[in-house]
Amino acid sequence: MKATVIGGSGYIGGELVRLLLQHPEVTLSQVTSTRLAGRALHTAHPNLRSQTDLLFTAHTDAAACDVLFLALPHGVAMREFERWSKLAPVIIDLGADFRLRDPADYATYYNVAHPCPEWLTRFVYGAPELYREQLREAHYIAVPGCMANAAILALYPLSAADRLSGEVVVDARTGSSGSGSEPNLASHHAERSGVMRVFKPIEHRHTAEIRQICTTPVYMTATAVEAVRGVQVICHVRLAEPMTEKELWMSYRRVYGAEPFIRLVKQRTGLYRLPEPKILSGTNFCDIGFALAADGRHLVIVAALDNLVKGGAGNAVQCLNIAAGWDERAGLHFAGLHPI
Amino acid sequence: MKATVIGGSGYIGGELVRLLLQHPEVTLSQVTSTRLAGRALHTAHPNLRSQTDLLFTAHTDAAACDVLFLALPHGVAMREFERWSKLAPVIIDLGADFRLRDPADYATYYNVAHPCPEWLTRFVYGAPELYREQLREAHYIAVPGCMANAAILALYPLSAADRLSGEVVVDARTGSSGSGSEPNLASHHAERSGVMRVFKPIEHRHTAEIRQICTTPVYMTATAVEAVRGVQVICHVRLAEPMTEKELWMSYRRVYGAEPFIRLVKQRTGLYRLPEPKILSGTNFCDIGFALAADGRHLVIVAALDNLVKGGAGNAVQCLNIAAGWDERAGLHFAGLHPI
Amino acid sequence: MKATVIGGSGYIGGELVRLLLQHPEVTLSQVTSTRLAGRALHTAHPNLRSQTDLLFTAHTDAAACDVLFLALPHGVAMREFERWSKLAPVIIDLGADFRLRDPADYATYYNVAHPCPEWLTRFVYGAPELYREQLREAHYIAVPGCMANAAILALYPLSAADRLSGEVVVDARTGSSGSGSEPNLASHHAERSGVMRVFKPIEHRHTAEIRQICTTPVYMTATAVEAVRGVQVICHVRLAEPMTEKELWMSYRRVYGAEPFIRLVKQRTGLYRLPEPKILSGTNFCDIGFALAADGRHLVIVAALDNLVKGGAGNAVQCLNIAAGWDERAGLHFAGLHPI
Amino acid sequence: MKATVIGGSGYIGGELVRLLLQHPEVTLSQVTSTRLAGRALHTAHPNLRSQTDLLFTAHTDAAACDVLFLALPHGVAMREFERWSKLAPVIIDLGADFRLRDPADYATYYNVAHPCPEWLTRFVYGAPELYREQLREAHYIAVPGCMANAAILALYPLSAADRLSGEVVVDARTGSSGSGSEPNLASHHAERSGVMRVFKPIEHRHTAEIRQICTTPVYMTATAVEAVRGVQVICHVRLAEPMTEKELWMSYRRVYGAEPFIRLVKQRTGLYRLPEPKILSGTNFCDIGFALAADGRHLVIVAALDNLVKGGAGNAVQCLNIAAGWDERAGLHFAGLHPI
Repeated sequence: MKATVIGGSGYIGGELVRLLLQHPEVTLSQVTSTRLAGRALHTAHPNLRSQTDLLFTAHTDAAACDVLFLALPHGVAMREFERWSKLAPVIIDLGADFRLRDPADYATYYNVAHPCPEWLTRFVYGAPELYREQLREAHYIAVPGCMANAAILALYPLSAADRLSGEVVVDARTGSSGSGSEPNLASHHAERSGVMRVFKPIEHRHTAEIRQICTTPVYMTATAVEAVRGVQVICHVRLAEPMTEKELWMSYRRVYGAEPFIRLVKQRTGLYRLPEPKILSGTNFCDIGFALAADGRHLVIVAALDNLVKGGAGNAVQCLNIAAGWDERAGLHFAGLHPI
Repeated sequence: MKATVIGGSGYIGGELVRLLLQHPEVTLSQVTSTRLAGRALHTAHPNLRSQTDLLFTAHTDAAACDVLFLALPHGVAMREFERWSKLAPVIIDLGADFRLRDPADYATYYNVAHPCPEWLTRFVYGAPELYREQLREAHYIAVPGCMANAAILALYPLSAADRLSGEVVVDARTGSSGSGSEPNLASHHAERSGVMRVFKPIEHRHTAEIRQICTTPVYMTATAVEAVRGVQVICHVRLAEPMTEKELWMSYRRVYGAEPFIRLVKQRTGLYRLPEPKILSGTNFCDIGFALAADGRHLVIVAALDNLVKGGAGNAVQCLNIAAGWDERAGLHFAGLHPI
Repeated sequence: MKATVIGGSGYIGGELVRLLLQHPEVTLSQVTSTRLAGRALHTAHPNLRSQTDLLFTAHTDAAACDVLFLALPHGVAMREFERWSKLAPVIIDLGADFRLRDPADYATYYNVAHPCPEWLTRFVYGAPELYREQLREAHYIAVPGCMANAAILALYPLSAADRLSGEVVVDARTGSSGSGSEPNLASHHAERSGVMRVFKPIEHRHTAEIRQICTTPVYMTATAVEAVRGVQVICHVRLAEPMTEKELWMSYRRVYGAEPFIRLVKQRTGLYRLPEPKILSGTNFCDIGFALAADGRHLVIVAALDNLVKGGAGNAVQCLNIAAGWDERAGLHFAGLHPI
Repeated sequence: MKATVIGGSGYIGGELVRLLLQHPEVTLSQVTSTRLAGRALHTAHPNLRSQTDLLFTAHTDAAACDVLFLALPHGVAMREFERWSKLAPVIIDLGADFRLRDPADYATYYNVAHPCPEWLTRFVYGAPELYREQLREAHYIAVPGCMANAAILALYPLSAADRLSGEVVVDARTGSSGSGSEPNLASHHAERSGVMRVFKPIEHRHTAEIRQICTTPVYMTATAVEAVRGVQVICHVRLAEPMTEKELWMSYRRVYGAEPFIRLVKQRTGLYRLPEPKILSGTNFCDIGFALAADGRHLVIVAALDNLVKGGAGNAVQCLNIAAGWDERAGLHFAGLHPI
């Protein structure tokens, strides 16, 4: 199957290229970049040295292919979607442009009038753990936001079973790669280094995605911490009825027991008792754990993932694997490093 | 005034020594350490090279002085407090042994039967912003825990005015110096580096201190992040009645407007719009800011401090300044570094 | 082929397990640890969660196998080597115990009288780029030290061609994983974080290995810097006769042009113009580049690798691949991450 | 004495402001910035919140004062120096524009024809340890480059005593603040984080300054490592005649024994046996140590400083203190933090 990556010079695009180059069923035929057209891929992604001879091509030179990945800044894919839609029967968008079902949400959260709202309902939200069946038939897939994906995976088993009551507080922490490859003062090393920067104390855009699957009110705080890769969310929820730890385990196992990329992590001892993003770098895992207060009602759920993989490119590949009918793990076998 | 530091080889003790050596009203006469007795202070604290000729002395050689600081591991000071109490008219404890008023809380939170509960009521909780008047007359001062102090300072103006309703969720993040100077696997660099380690998802010991000043239920999560110094707390609270941003400003200004070490930090632009611990390293500031949801009821309060200074040694010196009737800022003028 | 790892709880051992679990030709049959016998591998290596059901076994339970890897602290393997030698026809030692050919060097550099010097000549030094032919027949392989391997690969093309004159100055920088998984004050995060610690300004043990392949005098300085993985060496050498950049390129290409894990990295532009360890994390590459002074004689050679992979476990697997006659790249395909 | 800082929005400028605000003899009257004119100083330097009410003024509004500090990008001060020279009787330049005595060196190292070479000889090189007497009378002072200052202080006692023979190899490591406050891809956190980036393997500009005081050939390599503040240099030198450690100690003590900001650091035990930049953050110290090879001729000298203080703003203040006849330590008492 021939794949093209539109917008391959950014971090999500680069991660996609890394994964597709080692995918047993995919041939990467084109990677586009307006800025770097004509230059080698390793110009932007030094880890690809000696891995490929491909050069970046211009967006305008994108040819027909079997699957088209869009890894463009928010707001760009939606503006020319008709054009992209003609290039391939399967389109997987890694930006935010088709994640929200309600066009009005784009005005609220992204301050933009969606130019092609008729496409929104044709996209399947690329969360395999929630929408695997729909993804099997999907032609248009919108890959979730990194923090949204972690929070959704943390909350879904309880939310779907209607176990939550009252407010959900999501405290999200993220590494610097989440804000992309464009330098600015916020990403300047001397400023960004060692921060605990509450860059969005309330109403982060990813809240809109979480609200699509969570019926109770959601408040989300986003903090940049010292890391390059990695997202972790801490969800404080209130259970409608008291539960025991065992019941919680069963709730999560029932939903995720057969999932290839969800691991329940909740140990009594050791340093990695709860999900830790750093050991997930490069992997497609989302680790999930929890702690329950003595009252059986206040619950803290912790989820972690690599924002560029399970929070982006890896999740996109998993979606493709499902849509194409391949082994869902194809190209996603990396186990992660320790120590790191 | 002659000061002695008992337990001066740890991080809090070292910070106290640093501050006292430059304090205009204090002469540091002794610094004790069982392990390092007879060796130069800079053996443990390399920043003190060329700053002092003092050697560590044994605990047992501690002589009478004007003010005695106890910087001992939790549970140690309480065991021999009678002995310490004979050495000085003013005793300032930087550990947890006299922070809680109810002896039963020591069983609950520290798993220990307090050996001298009669002393608990004689101690003033060393939060100048809450108990300045009591500190003026105090002979025994218990310096708050680092994360507790940040959370208390964040919550106090609203809690004292009875503005809170429902649960308070405190999400605390801390650097590695907060867990002390003893090496162990949790602090091993290859493991500790780059973590977002939820080491205490619920019921951290500092919750006991916060509950002493906050009438609504408190749930606290503690996460170790990549930093050496620094504590930040994010408090999610629900206001009993809707408030405006301006009313919140006024509430905080009313309580903290004249405080020398509290700064309200809430800017519309810039990278340091909300409190950021890293620029507080070495300073005695606690920076506090907030963000209010559109409903006027869900409020996110952010506070930051240096766990070894305003979260420990600096706060202790501030308490001493008050008790001794000196300028409250004496010895605490360092403004902090940027970039860092 | 059945493989056993003796001493699998350390960082090199864990990396070996990670690589062997994904190796197409190897079945990992046992991993031993005195301390963790009976516990799951992911107790020590959290990245191996869901990757294997193996438990650690005691050293004393090690059974016969096809290839035995020794990942023990320096000085341990040599003490009981007769015992290990009976377990497998191929033994690959990742410690220092059989790296030096001259027994006297063990007294000089390791302060130990080698207990079985007769074995030293039976070991092949595990540098595929230098000794591939010998490795094809090897039964006993001593994997080079991490910094030594980087320096040797940097210097070998010029040293072997007798191009060097005068002193070689090797400035080596290393991450914290190089000093192992045992916590101590040197590795305590609050101390180790952000250092530029010249822990061995002269006569680091790895110098002994470099001297085995370099005829001119070698002086080596070792500095710990802020990183978990990664080694970089800067070699300042003086060429016997002036050379041009092109001649240097040709020298390196002639020796390394066909090497699967050596990349020559010397670009005019970009951030990764010279070898950078961080993008090599998890990979088996050693990247090598250089800069030549205008006089054509002072040359700066830079080499980088992941100390646990090309500087340890990956190099060991590469040696096994050669000795077993497999594709030299088997199990070593990971390309590395960017950003990281 | 009234002081003005021209170009106060950068990192060196900000550090100067921090120091001057606490200086007992100086009143900071103006701080200029083209970009931020009219805005509060803490806009650029968040550590100055609550420390001053000063606003940035435009360069063109700079008024006459007693001492003028120029903290401008290289090449800017030299272009309009006549103008600046009219504003104050004492001018201290923190850029490179007047550091080199030979105008030709500006062509070689900075690729610029110096527009006012007649001023070069009127400037004193701001190294108090070398030129204290000249600084007492100085009106124009050129503060050394950060890496140059460390290397010069490391080498000077031996170079001045003509103890060196053969090449000097200087291996310099630097934090990210050294490259200024302007964001670019090189400083983008996801790229800059965790690097060992040999950004200038040979002929770094600071070599020109070192060569002004060192008679033997100097080769310098500059590497960016993970740190915000801090410079460390490792100098490999060859002694003309063998020396003992004791003789070396005496050589350094003779020259630096009375220096207020030089500390000789060479311990047998402990983690801080040799100079470590991180504990110098915010201080004006340059720590110097060494290790001697068994042959008594190959010597490794290590020096460390905070690039923004002893490598810039602090050194400038020290120079002013000398020129003004004040206590040389005035405003420079900060001892540094540990842990950090």
